[in-house]
Amino acid sequence: MSEPAGELDRTFHALADPNRRAILSVVRNKRCAVGEIADMLGLSQQIVSHHLKVLRAAGLVTGARSGTRHLFVVRVEGLAVGKGFFEDFWPERLSALKRAVESSARSSDG
Amino acid sequence: MSEPAGELDRTFHALADPNRRAILSVVRNKRCAVGEIADMLGLSQQIVSHHLKVLRAAGLVTGARSGTRHLFVVRVEGLAVGKGFFEDFWPERLSALKRAVESSARSSDG
Repeated sequence: MSEPAGELDRTFHALADPNRRAILSVVRNKRCAVGEIADMLGLSQQIVSHHLKVLRAAGLVTGARSGTRHLFVVRVEGLAVGKGFFEDFWPERLSALKRAVESSARSSDG
Repeated sequence: MSEPAGELDRTFHALADPNRRAILSVVRNKRCAVGEIADMLGLSQQIVSHHLKVLRAAGLVTGARSGTRHLFVVRVEGLAVGKGFFEDFWPERLSALKRAVESSARSSDG
């Protein structure tokens, strides 16, 4: 694993909440203000602000001023940390399964 | 997302701990007893048992008796829940980035 442990802790902790995952879905493809996210999800602005703070600390969203508004959007590099965990984890396990299937196919041939 | 929210909550909560991720790495390719995992990671059996309980509740490991021993191994279907989250999340975002890059390339052409 190339990412420091703390980064994966924060990534997975941030993703372990349905409201935070819903917020990520909202800001996946477009920049949104807190109020827009709150309206779209039927949550209070206070709750959305709290979750955005956790998501920002985990590097999963980024915020920037646009005129007088503060807009949030998914941070792809942050999501890549979590995605990378599964990609690092996967190939060996699949190889092991493949070996197991092949070896059991050989046993039933014999 | 096809998985119920609670399942993703448990998956990501379980993965948000470096010891639990270390245990998953140990049991990724072979079945291990609690004592073997504890020795390999330099943790107490009590701590390992606790973490295995969380990992089992999240469906990330499975345990089975082998003679007098109780052996644990990664549950691929459980990992697939987390992996699926990133896969569901990814393609649209990448398409959006591609469109953004193309549109900015067009702007600088004009």
